[in-house]
Amino acid sequence: MQTKIILPDSEIPKQWYNIMADMPNKPAPPLHPATKQPVGPDDLSPIFPMALIEQEVSDQRWIDIPEDVLKIYTLWRPSPMYRAHRLEEALGTPAKIYYKYEGVSPAGSHKPNTSVPQAYYNKQAGVKRIATETGAGQWGSAMALAGSLFGIDVTVYMVKVSYNQKPYRRIAMETWGAEVFASPTDKTEAGRKILEADPDNPGSLGIAISEAVEDAATHSDTNYALGSVLNHVLLHQTVIGLEAKKQMELIGDYPDVIVGCCGGGSNLAGLSFPFLQDKINGKQLRVIAVEPASCPTLTKGEFRYDFGDTAGLTPLLMMYTLGHDFVPPGIHAGGLRYHADAPLVCQLYHDGLIEAKAYPQTAVFEAALQFARSEGIIPAPESSHAVKAAIDEALRCKEEGKEETILFNLSGHGYLDLQAYADYLEGKLVDYEYPEEKIKEALSRLPQI
Amino acid sequence: MQTKIILPDSEIPKQWYNIMADMPNKPAPPLHPATKQPVGPDDLSPIFPMALIEQEVSDQRWIDIPEDVLKIYTLWRPSPMYRAHRLEEALGTPAKIYYKYEGVSPAGSHKPNTSVPQAYYNKQAGVKRIATETGAGQWGSAMALAGSLFGIDVTVYMVKVSYNQKPYRRIAMETWGAEVFASPTDKTEAGRKILEADPDNPGSLGIAISEAVEDAATHSDTNYALGSVLNHVLLHQTVIGLEAKKQMELIGDYPDVIVGCCGGGSNLAGLSFPFLQDKINGKQLRVIAVEPASCPTLTKGEFRYDFGDTAGLTPLLMMYTLGHDFVPPGIHAGGLRYHADAPLVCQLYHDGLIEAKAYPQTAVFEAALQFARSEGIIPAPESSHAVKAAIDEALRCKEEGKEETILFNLSGHGYLDLQAYADYLEGKLVDYEYPEEKIKEALSRLPQI
Repeated sequence: MQTKIILPDSEIPKQWYNIMADMPNKPAPPLHPATKQPVGPDDLSPIFPMALIEQEVSDQRWIDIPEDVLKIYTLWRPSPMYRAHRLEEALGTPAKIYYKYEGVSPAGSHKPNTSVPQAYYNKQAGVKRIATETGAGQWGSAMALAGSLFGIDVTVYMVKVSYNQKPYRRIAMETWGAEVFASPTDKTEAGRKILEADPDNPGSLGIAISEAVEDAATHSDTNYALGSVLNHVLLHQTVIGLEAKKQMELIGDYPDVIVGCCGGGSNLAGLSFPFLQDKINGKQLRVIAVEPASCPTLTKGEFRYDFGDTAGLTPLLMMYTLGHDFVPPGIHAGGLRYHADAPLVCQLYHDGLIEAKAYPQTAVFEAALQFARSEGIIPAPESSHAVKAAIDEALRCKEEGKEETILFNLSGHGYLDLQAYADYLEGKLVDYEYPEEKIKEALSRLPQI
Repeated sequence: MQTKIILPDSEIPKQWYNIMADMPNKPAPPLHPATKQPVGPDDLSPIFPMALIEQEVSDQRWIDIPEDVLKIYTLWRPSPMYRAHRLEEALGTPAKIYYKYEGVSPAGSHKPNTSVPQAYYNKQAGVKRIATETGAGQWGSAMALAGSLFGIDVTVYMVKVSYNQKPYRRIAMETWGAEVFASPTDKTEAGRKILEADPDNPGSLGIAISEAVEDAATHSDTNYALGSVLNHVLLHQTVIGLEAKKQMELIGDYPDVIVGCCGGGSNLAGLSFPFLQDKINGKQLRVIAVEPASCPTLTKGEFRYDFGDTAGLTPLLMMYTLGHDFVPPGIHAGGLRYHADAPLVCQLYHDGLIEAKAYPQTAVFEAALQFARSEGIIPAPESSHAVKAAIDEALRCKEEGKEETILFNLSGHGYLDLQAYADYLEGKLVDYEYPEEKIKEALSRLPQI
């Protein structure tokens, strides 16, 4: 009865898988925020190195992973895949539940899979500093880690309310040597404008993005980095699914259902895209994106062009969106509070290759607790959305008497989210109403394209 | 250039190594606190299952690991061993630095290596509940995890000042289903007595031990569990060193120096004992126990009989001790604040098979930061003592132009200790004077045996 499926270091993928090569319908191109015309490499080169811009638009199926990136990947990759025997037993399900565990990275989530190559390509391009934003801190800490490993400075604009209330990921970033500012700051025009109007503004991810982009655009030695949404970010995450395929092969199994939580969509994409290649080629397989009921981008959003940030400075992307100035309730899964999803995920969802499901947070924490008590690992609140959906699929299999194989992505651990568990255990966690009116309003403010 | 040395699951050790079989001088026997006569199995059976008592006194060289324990070990074992290439480069040392990483366990330290078999043997013996103590919470969370995996209730007496100031490990314990009380409590006579005299008593590990032992002794369905010091605890930890030996063999290397931090001594013992077998048989090898300068048990303590707890309820053990009522300063490495060390470690130190070194905490955190920024992983404050000593050994090699092989135990990660890093980064961390007078006083109060 095998519990853990591991691969030797020699089996770390040497190439990323680019799903653009196989998609039945390519995503619509990003548009310039002012001209509304498709953006070209020149529009992006002030803030991204050319290697990443090329990956962003490439339709080459396989893209080589640089040797220096592979060396760093070895720190935590190949990540383990587990068979959740004890959880299966607790549920009394005939289904087989597997999970790929990305919490083994030094930053505790899947994010370093892309922060490391992003730091590498920027270093190669002679960039001295990377400016980026972070909400609760998962992405910022992954970028800080990568910066420290490649000797590149990192400036993080961290949403002020998280900076003050959740100091631990900030301290982790500082431990890795990054400079962290509570956003809005007085260091950018975007920040100053907001502080003038409202000195006590608690910040938002949208504001922090505007500040980081401005910082990068106005300093020639500085670039910008993003932790999700963009094509090259999802590309880097495919190491997860490529390994999982080998691990499944090793035990002679193949998933009927793949589950990942979905904020911007990068961990879901990372696990599922290499399997979706098979699905596009005719294989039977379901892929489920799991989102919070309070920020139901795929299940309740509209498929249209929208900005990536609140202020409307980024290119317009074709996404399922709730409106770029929609502010979701303050749920504990901070990483899932984005107003839209990656264009690649959205197109695949639109084409019926991905399903979506939304859950309220108390149900998610109930599942997380059952997982922690049977499997040992305390999952991050974001990843717990995938746990919940996997459990529900396993219970469906029990009802239907089916021996399906379920594979989900345990994208991170919950060591830095224990306050959320305390709130749940003390009955303080609330479920928010589906914010229909606010979403309708935010959508009504979108540009018509 | 190999960075990570991993073993397949099939290489998890099937037996623990018992150094009692090979020690040139066996440790003196534990004495009954009242009669001062050697304790027998009957003295221990009210609070320990017979299987563990047998291991405590065994001099059998190899002891089988039960199948059900191996199954759980698979969750995180074999743990990875890393070559610290980037740290070596940063130091400019010809030495090779390796570290065995125990932070991959679900509780984030080496402690589950023993909490899991302890839960197993208690479950086998029909015990329904385990009472234990914890300081900052590393041991308590490992016991809570093990309890949840074997379906055995866990009650943790947590030192009150930590319970209030460091809630995260408490929440982790509760997430795994344990009941956690701020000690001193009104639930035991020991606790009530202390609260009567001083209602605001902040608690201490010694008091918490007294409460847990009393709880176990006064409830027939309840046993007691300890996370360090005792022979059977150190025995269970030898999986670390047994794996490390195989990993060294795999790359054709062997350590010249082995380093581990030392509070009670279990992680140091776990890594070093299997190698010490070779040293006893003539192999060249240094083993260094690293302790905090503010609690310098091996470097400044006396080798004599002392109690394991403050109240003097436990058997008397032959240890290097600072006196059982010595209260070390509140340094951040809470796991190293014990007044003595494991009798096995003490005997080996006494016989010159182990060396010892003490460091003040700011030097330790400086080393931890250098490690985090070059190797990625943020170490626990306890483990950072080993990091510091390993770095110093590597710098000695640089001075002497020697290409020695250094292996240290990175016994846990620092995710739940980030406040300590913040204090260091903000310059708030202080080094305590070596508390010579207090130690002298505490030693003067020891029983003469």
